[in-house]
Amino acid sequence: MLEPSSVAILGASDNPNRIGGRPLRYLRDGGFKGEVYPVNPNRETVQGLTAYPSITDVPAAADVALLAIPAAATEQAVQACAEKGVGAAIIFSAGYAELGAEGAAIQDRIGSLAATTGMRILGPNCLGVFNSAVGFYGTFTQSLDRGVPETGSIAVVSQSGAYGSHLAYLANQRGMGVKYMITTGNEADIEVAEALDHLAGDPDVSVIMAYAEGVRDPDRFRAALRRAHDAKKPIVFMKVGRSAVGARAAKSHTASLAGADAVYEALFREFGVYRAQTTDEQLDVAYACARGVYPAGGRLGIVTLSGGIGVQMCDAAERFDLTVSPMPAGAQKTLKDLLPYAAVENPVDTTAQALNDMSLLAKNFEVMLEEGGYHAVLGFFGSVPATRTLADPLKEAILSGTRRFRDRLIVLEMVASREIVRSYEEAGFLAYEDGDRAIASIAALKHLREAHDRPLSAPAPVADPAPLPTGPLSEYAAKRLLREAGVPMLDEHLAADADAAVAAAREVGLPVVMKIVSPDIQHKTEIGGVIVGVGTEAAVREAYGLLRERAGSAAPKAQIEGILVAPMAPKGIEAIVGVSRDPLFGPMVMFGLGGILVEVFKDVTFRMAPFDRDEALRMIGEISGRALLDGVRGAGRADVEALADLLVVVGNFAAAQAETIESIDLNPVLIFEKGRGVVALDALIETRMPATD
Amino acid sequence: MLEPSSVAILGASDNPNRIGGRPLRYLRDGGFKGEVYPVNPNRETVQGLTAYPSITDVPAAADVALLAIPAAATEQAVQACAEKGVGAAIIFSAGYAELGAEGAAIQDRIGSLAATTGMRILGPNCLGVFNSAVGFYGTFTQSLDRGVPETGSIAVVSQSGAYGSHLAYLANQRGMGVKYMITTGNEADIEVAEALDHLAGDPDVSVIMAYAEGVRDPDRFRAALRRAHDAKKPIVFMKVGRSAVGARAAKSHTASLAGADAVYEALFREFGVYRAQTTDEQLDVAYACARGVYPAGGRLGIVTLSGGIGVQMCDAAERFDLTVSPMPAGAQKTLKDLLPYAAVENPVDTTAQALNDMSLLAKNFEVMLEEGGYHAVLGFFGSVPATRTLADPLKEAILSGTRRFRDRLIVLEMVASREIVRSYEEAGFLAYEDGDRAIASIAALKHLREAHDRPLSAPAPVADPAPLPTGPLSEYAAKRLLREAGVPMLDEHLAADADAAVAAAREVGLPVVMKIVSPDIQHKTEIGGVIVGVGTEAAVREAYGLLRERAGSAAPKAQIEGILVAPMAPKGIEAIVGVSRDPLFGPMVMFGLGGILVEVFKDVTFRMAPFDRDEALRMIGEISGRALLDGVRGAGRADVEALADLLVVVGNFAAAQAETIESIDLNPVLIFEKGRGVVALDALIETRMPATD
Repeated sequence: MLEPSSVAILGASDNPNRIGGRPLRYLRDGGFKGEVYPVNPNRETVQGLTAYPSITDVPAAADVALLAIPAAATEQAVQACAEKGVGAAIIFSAGYAELGAEGAAIQDRIGSLAATTGMRILGPNCLGVFNSAVGFYGTFTQSLDRGVPETGSIAVVSQSGAYGSHLAYLANQRGMGVKYMITTGNEADIEVAEALDHLAGDPDVSVIMAYAEGVRDPDRFRAALRRAHDAKKPIVFMKVGRSAVGARAAKSHTASLAGADAVYEALFREFGVYRAQTTDEQLDVAYACARGVYPAGGRLGIVTLSGGIGVQMCDAAERFDLTVSPMPAGAQKTLKDLLPYAAVENPVDTTAQALNDMSLLAKNFEVMLEEGGYHAVLGFFGSVPATRTLADPLKEAILSGTRRFRDRLIVLEMVASREIVRSYEEAGFLAYEDGDRAIASIAALKHLREAHDRPLSAPAPVADPAPLPTGPLSEYAAKRLLREAGVPMLDEHLAADADAAVAAAREVGLPVVMKIVSPDIQHKTEIGGVIVGVGTEAAVREAYGLLRERAGSAAPKAQIEGILVAPMAPKGIEAIVGVSRDPLFGPMVMFGLGGILVEVFKDVTFRMAPFDRDEALRMIGEISGRALLDGVRGAGRADVEALADLLVVVGNFAAAQAETIESIDLNPVLIFEKGRGVVALDALIETRMPATD
Repeated sequence: MLEPSSVAILGASDNPNRIGGRPLRYLRDGGFKGEVYPVNPNRETVQGLTAYPSITDVPAAADVALLAIPAAATEQAVQACAEKGVGAAIIFSAGYAELGAEGAAIQDRIGSLAATTGMRILGPNCLGVFNSAVGFYGTFTQSLDRGVPETGSIAVVSQSGAYGSHLAYLANQRGMGVKYMITTGNEADIEVAEALDHLAGDPDVSVIMAYAEGVRDPDRFRAALRRAHDAKKPIVFMKVGRSAVGARAAKSHTASLAGADAVYEALFREFGVYRAQTTDEQLDVAYACARGVYPAGGRLGIVTLSGGIGVQMCDAAERFDLTVSPMPAGAQKTLKDLLPYAAVENPVDTTAQALNDMSLLAKNFEVMLEEGGYHAVLGFFGSVPATRTLADPLKEAILSGTRRFRDRLIVLEMVASREIVRSYEEAGFLAYEDGDRAIASIAALKHLREAHDRPLSAPAPVADPAPLPTGPLSEYAAKRLLREAGVPMLDEHLAADADAAVAAAREVGLPVVMKIVSPDIQHKTEIGGVIVGVGTEAAVREAYGLLRERAGSAAPKAQIEGILVAPMAPKGIEAIVGVSRDPLFGPMVMFGLGGILVEVFKDVTFRMAPFDRDEALRMIGEISGRALLDGVRGAGRADVEALADLLVVVGNFAAAQAETIESIDLNPVLIFEKGRGVVALDALIETRMPATD
């Protein structure tokens, strides 16, 4: 479909500005070398080409058929294309699933035609595709009105036709060569995931810009992201619908924080997909990726002609976690000897002096790269290169100073004509009109390199699950299951009478905590069902009676499994670990620290279960409050490794029980100092199976 | 200085590309109508004008003298200018305070010439000024090489010449008319604050873009910000040096979080200055301000030709706290009748259909504004208006639909030639190439309107301070001072012997907390100097002895004032209130919630003392964790009003004691439910006065 040798256009129009006329015009503008068959029952010729009354009459089975015909006629036309042996049909018209049940039914029938006939279908309600390298324009986007784009190594994949074509247009305006645009629309057959997968394997594509509201096939989507990761091919993703978070009805505490967007965020983090927040950012980062130089670390050198701008750039570098480390003393001396008025520590402020002797500037870059060893250098030149007389010497100077360091990223802030900027780009430099955006892009490249260089999570195979008991689970039952799965718990005992409670207390050591255990009482504290700090054996006996009494009066029909006797928990940092089931992606593990941080700041992170220990460690590192784990107020470093193990265990358990468990809530989990482990104090499991009785 | 009728150029050069030649060239390019006197002892003429051997020989005392001469010759030249009666001297050369003590001394001498002679001085080490309305270019910036700018209502004030001229250049590139550029450099005389103050009072200036690393005169700076606020004139400020936060040695806990940048942040918040994080943002917001329509609220209507882009824009609106509220049902019906395929709730997706009948689009805007009542409407049109045939009809349609609503802000996302964009701007629309940036700018305008519409803080006059005792203050002494000032405290008693302790315990009610009180023991808990939960009178007696004993062995030389007996504190939300003294701006009050939020997230806010209750309420509203005060986990709403009163009291106290107090630390302050007030549990005051003995 992306490189057809023949194209049929159903509904081809002689008017080059109509939906059925534009593709023909663009194919001609783009110099498409293959056969083009306009189909139009009312005309002999269309835009000078012989027209055919129907697809059946076309001399050969086209590789691609463009359907620029009304929705009502489409189903039959798709059928005719399939019978003719057309390779792929691209359906432009709208009026399907987006309008309701009737449209959805037609769309489903069209989709199943693809499955039964083998003819692939793009759309409906899409803006088509293009491959600028061969001049194939199977699209009616009006954004090509002002000329077909330059080709290059960038691919655009978008569910939204308007977004995809606008993005391709903006990219082209910035001098970025877009090779492919693929818009998938309503996705009766081909969806974004498949397009991503294909492009991930295309060696001519250096970076993919994607847009999606959601995906249909989670396995295919994950497979595509995996393939892109393994090929070290960046995907710069605009995933929209973030503000719909929380719309889904939330049953458990964990689920209320999940929601579809968090799932995508989790996948993007796992596979190292760069999520862009704005279109500018998407373009900035893709532009940088297309250059193909990914800095090996975050040490940033800054060269400016002005001290003030250097300060601004330092602020930006800190915001994006890049390190503006000082130059070695020797290198500083070298530079100071060259330019006595310059600031030489980093940022290096050459003052405008360097423009009078460009060789000084060259030397500056060279010393910074050789002796400073920076992974990336930002040169801030403003409108200096806009002046023709300065543009070339400046470029040559930077080139001569950086020539020996092709693995380093050289980024310039400069404002000049497209023509001048292009000459800098051709010399191997990235050019941005805004310094902050330049720095943000450097940070993005560093982040992508880290993500691509690390292996993906490789969880241990999940064992066949033990069958769960039916009906709701008590705290005790939930804890038993999770303890068996490997979740560290306190040494707790279920006591059926007061004597057993005393014996248990003796075993775990006084003072103890005592709780009612019942699958029918989920909120124990509200009925006084938890007593802490029970200090003597007599008090244990008394508390046993009291808890029984409270349960009896507050919930006379509740089935009481017994009274839990547990040791008092030592002090630790509180965390919440949960699992919620996404309808599409299955169980997602959530992690957050402390009550306030989760509830007020929503400082949580998610991963699709299962995952390995390194992935769990990355989850922990993503939390804004992670500094708490490094030890504050004199506390030692927390046992992050044990916490990671707990997350892995919970993920494995949730994956094994994916069909049977709706949610898990471990709240709180206490994290102790390094070497002392973690413990889940409370556990709640919500099963998906109704009670059998 | 900004509108001179005569300009002398010392060091005038015949070469129009040299520092001494450029101003002359720009004055000519700009059509400057006043007299120009080149001064050059070596030439008869300079660029065709008669040259004078020295400033003394110039026929009249110029309003402005530009000093394009080496640093070594400058001091003498400034003297000569003053003697000649020149109004103001602008010194371009570098080589003063930025190079060390020697340069600073010369700079000081130059500055004092201004004070003694009345001649004003701009610079040294500055890039000068311009006033594009009269063609006065007292600058050698090479950014004017490609032509002098269009004039307009925007002013640029910058300490950094490079930043200021680059900003003016970028603004001009975006079609923004810059009337004034003022760069202040080393500020021997005129500083940024004075320039801001002047421009705040200039009716021809609609918005000021500023850049500073710091200011010299805090009172003048505050006065300038106040004047701008009262004139409802936006200042869009790039304050750099944020990453230097924390460089200042921190003595107390509070001070370690303060630091110069926090002080500026506090001033910006108090006076409603818009702080830009990036240059793009600074330009985006200033561009929007220059239009002069500030939305009265945050209700945003969105019109797109594509549903997908609407979702993206909703995400952005949420990020910037704008409300995409649905259209009224009647209005939805009206639109649905017009455009059956459209989404009509808001975002309104007209589909590309609207381009075939532009009157539909006009009607859309009209219904949204009239019936939807949105304060601002964003229309997202991408590259549609880039097509000449669509540009005019689209503009006319939007104009006809919005004509009756000139108080609403109409913002368009569009990518087209400068010429087309200009025609839209002239029709009254704001145009952005990126939708997120458009939305960010709408939010900025809303924020600015709120800030300008509210009255500034009007603190009550601060009473003459009672003299503080000399030397370090004990907790008890600090608390007594603060309680007298109006800070709510627990009912605590200082007991000099065990009997008094028992009597005190009886009065405040058992159980009690008991603490050692000594000005020499600041960290009581570390030596076991605090005992909580003392439950009986016997225990009080015992604890008294124990505390005395511990103090005696841990700090035998400490002066013990007694043992504090206090009631156990009820439960409340923990806050920290502190004061630290900024060397320039004096006492700054800090407020933050809870230990973790302050320590891990640095979730604190500052204000210069004193301030009024509304300002204190705004401080509280600025904290990220403020949702805690609304009540989480079933807690009621916290007593925010009492907290605000506490902040005001602390601010007044700190202002009264500005010269004598280094820092105050109230940690924790407990906030109870609404109506139940607040209480400071612990207090520490660090005085600036050494002990006298």
